[in-house]
Amino acid sequence: MRIVIVGGVAAGMSAASRAMRHNPHAEVVVFERGEYISYGACGLPYVLGGEVKDFEALIARTPQQMRGRGISVRLRHEVTGVDAGARTVTVVDHASGRSVAEPYDQLLLATGVSAIRPDWARTELSGVHVLRDIPDGQAIEASLQGASRAIIVGGGYIGLELAEALSCRGLSVAVVEKAPEVAGRMLDPEYQHRVRGELEDNGVTVHCSTTVEGLTGRDGRVTGVQTDGGFLHADMVIVAVGVRPNVDLARAAGVRIGKTGAVAVNIRQETSVAGIFSAGDNTESIHRVTRRKVHIPLGLTANRMGRVAGVNMAGGDATFPGVVGSSIFKTFGLGVARTGLTQQEAGTLGLDAVSVDVRSTDHAGYYSTAKPIYVRLTAERGTGRLLGTQLVCHNHESVKRVDVVAALLHGRGKVQDLFETDLSYAPPFSGVWDVLLVAADRLSREIHKNSE
Amino acid sequence: MRIVIVGGVAAGMSAASRAMRHNPHAEVVVFERGEYISYGACGLPYVLGGEVKDFEALIARTPQQMRGRGISVRLRHEVTGVDAGARTVTVVDHASGRSVAEPYDQLLLATGVSAIRPDWARTELSGVHVLRDIPDGQAIEASLQGASRAIIVGGGYIGLELAEALSCRGLSVAVVEKAPEVAGRMLDPEYQHRVRGELEDNGVTVHCSTTVEGLTGRDGRVTGVQTDGGFLHADMVIVAVGVRPNVDLARAAGVRIGKTGAVAVNIRQETSVAGIFSAGDNTESIHRVTRRKVHIPLGLTANRMGRVAGVNMAGGDATFPGVVGSSIFKTFGLGVARTGLTQQEAGTLGLDAVSVDVRSTDHAGYYSTAKPIYVRLTAERGTGRLLGTQLVCHNHESVKRVDVVAALLHGRGKVQDLFETDLSYAPPFSGVWDVLLVAADRLSREIHKNSE
Repeated sequence: MRIVIVGGVAAGMSAASRAMRHNPHAEVVVFERGEYISYGACGLPYVLGGEVKDFEALIARTPQQMRGRGISVRLRHEVTGVDAGARTVTVVDHASGRSVAEPYDQLLLATGVSAIRPDWARTELSGVHVLRDIPDGQAIEASLQGASRAIIVGGGYIGLELAEALSCRGLSVAVVEKAPEVAGRMLDPEYQHRVRGELEDNGVTVHCSTTVEGLTGRDGRVTGVQTDGGFLHADMVIVAVGVRPNVDLARAAGVRIGKTGAVAVNIRQETSVAGIFSAGDNTESIHRVTRRKVHIPLGLTANRMGRVAGVNMAGGDATFPGVVGSSIFKTFGLGVARTGLTQQEAGTLGLDAVSVDVRSTDHAGYYSTAKPIYVRLTAERGTGRLLGTQLVCHNHESVKRVDVVAALLHGRGKVQDLFETDLSYAPPFSGVWDVLLVAADRLSREIHKNSE
Repeated sequence: MRIVIVGGVAAGMSAASRAMRHNPHAEVVVFERGEYISYGACGLPYVLGGEVKDFEALIARTPQQMRGRGISVRLRHEVTGVDAGARTVTVVDHASGRSVAEPYDQLLLATGVSAIRPDWARTELSGVHVLRDIPDGQAIEASLQGASRAIIVGGGYIGLELAEALSCRGLSVAVVEKAPEVAGRMLDPEYQHRVRGELEDNGVTVHCSTTVEGLTGRDGRVTGVQTDGGFLHADMVIVAVGVRPNVDLARAAGVRIGKTGAVAVNIRQETSVAGIFSAGDNTESIHRVTRRKVHIPLGLTANRMGRVAGVNMAGGDATFPGVVGSSIFKTFGLGVARTGLTQQEAGTLGLDAVSVDVRSTDHAGYYSTAKPIYVRLTAERGTGRLLGTQLVCHNHESVKRVDVVAALLHGRGKVQDLFETDLSYAPPFSGVWDVLLVAADRLSREIHKNSE
């Protein structure tokens, strides 16, 4: 059996490892158009910021190590076509420029996402970057030499991680965001402003409700950004306005693309075309709270999907359970986390949601290192079914308790289930009533009130 | 309606507040034999160690504040008898020495626990202490003046929190423990030694398998401890060998005491005698994993029981859902947490349990502040039902993820449920596969193997 995998990062390499483990007699071939496989892309901002020593540290496994496991990895090999009838792919070897047809029995599309580059960002000027992969990171690193003013376009989590990183490197940083607030896709408005506050407290200038219209340059290097709110000087611009799934190959193969714009699959990661699987950032998943298809490209999800695809391609039977929308990030000292739905998202979906906001401390209030923690907890009115939570705290690790709610969301837990959970308590870890319990207690009194 | 509460700390004051909220017309009277109410006893070691500025900081509410809510608090009033037929209690006012009968409609016994003092610790010598309440803490604080060598007898969590606190105050500290290892009631043997290592790495001498036989003194002050392993010099001895529930009053009232030695109650916190409730450290609860009665005196449990009793005494209907055995502590830099059952506990109960041990990092392995984290995850063979987990990490707060497993234990979750949970991930918070997911993955492969 010959298993061909297109893309050698999170989903692709997880699939390769699992397939080989499940069926040691399979032939597993990975085509990666880039020069690196199996690296932690989520760590890229931290290499730039200095929390990780170098880009190599992000690489979990080398092609040599994969070969040791019987997996063939071909770098700088780009798959440009699929013939699903003949079960072959067309592969271009960028070293030689030659193109060959390679047969497969099972094919995995793990083609990931690309950073969106608006028209104004398609430029020859140096100093203009996106951050998706190690070469992008290396280009930013090189660009940092002699730079003193950076503009980050986009206030999502990658933009905000980069704001911290470049500030740590001594640059003066501004964030330009089209929406009225940063972190707008992750949090309700009441929590977005706390994130903006953290940026401003750390010397980052934040321009919200501001649209970029173009770039200026001199001697081939970017010198600034023209926005609808005025001109901003910069010798470095990072474009972090979002990603789009790489679905051209899937589309060319006749694979169905979902309404989200990502590849549609069933819970076995099978696409609409026999013998073709899809996994990772290019692929839809099921949101367990809403039962709808979503496209939330994140590292753990990609790895999980890859494992499931790998097992199934090798003849096994695995299923992907879906996501509940957990995400977490840190910018400067602030930890931010959410899972499930925000109040706003629940409203958009037509759910009758009710939320409470609680301010407490992450450790016992009297304990020296305690800091305020802000939590919004959201449930369905009447039924008390948990819908989601949002947390913000200056002890950044304290927002990881979001995972408790994530666990309950998987089982369609109720507010009462959260309240009854026997959470651990000692003063250096939480208050006797952890903020999640306080929120559940208050929310339990709201869920039976009628909406106004 | 007259509600009388015996004991004004965690369970008692929670009950008082809830009763008054539920029925604002009730008369609520709290008799507290000591001088303080509503304080966080769990914070006592941290006042001594300097993490909390003074003992007053532990006091959540004063008698004046409670009176403002319509709750009458009588300090230094000890309830010495109950006439359940006449529905009266006998109360001694320690200020005047007078004793009066007080009527009640509903009575709550929230009498807590006492520190066990073995025969050798019943001494007139100064410098010998237990730590249960604020006066104990103040006595230790006074005793610290001029002290240089402390011996802590008992290697449970209070002893280990004190070992850290007294070391922080500059004392030379030794721990004497009867069992072969410290933290023996909380962890499996494979994890106990990590706790001992942390103590030794911080200059604490640990004497395990060592029994205290007596104390020596001079001029009325303790000078050392005689053990079966030799003599140890000390100018301060803290006895932290455990607690026993204060059930004399319950027993005198004809209330049934459970096999655990604590007061037996139903899920409404009602005792065997009509009109008498019991809540807090003196009271049994149900372990949700084993469905057995247990006595695990902890702060959150006491508060929860008190709330339930308060609502019910005031005419409402609340139930206590039971515990899953979550506990957590810190000693020096090490965080230690557990929930559910250890492998050893499961074996003692006759369960066919299987465990895996995982060593990972608490943050992404390449992230600067990542530290090793050790996890044991335990499930029932065959069914895959989760039974418990134990975690140890030098970033102490990282072991708070124990709460994810606690949430699943409440719903009788399986290993697969834990593995499928969409945990949050970013490099400063965890690895892409959080250690709990790694453990669940490995354990899922073990649960269907036959036992040897």
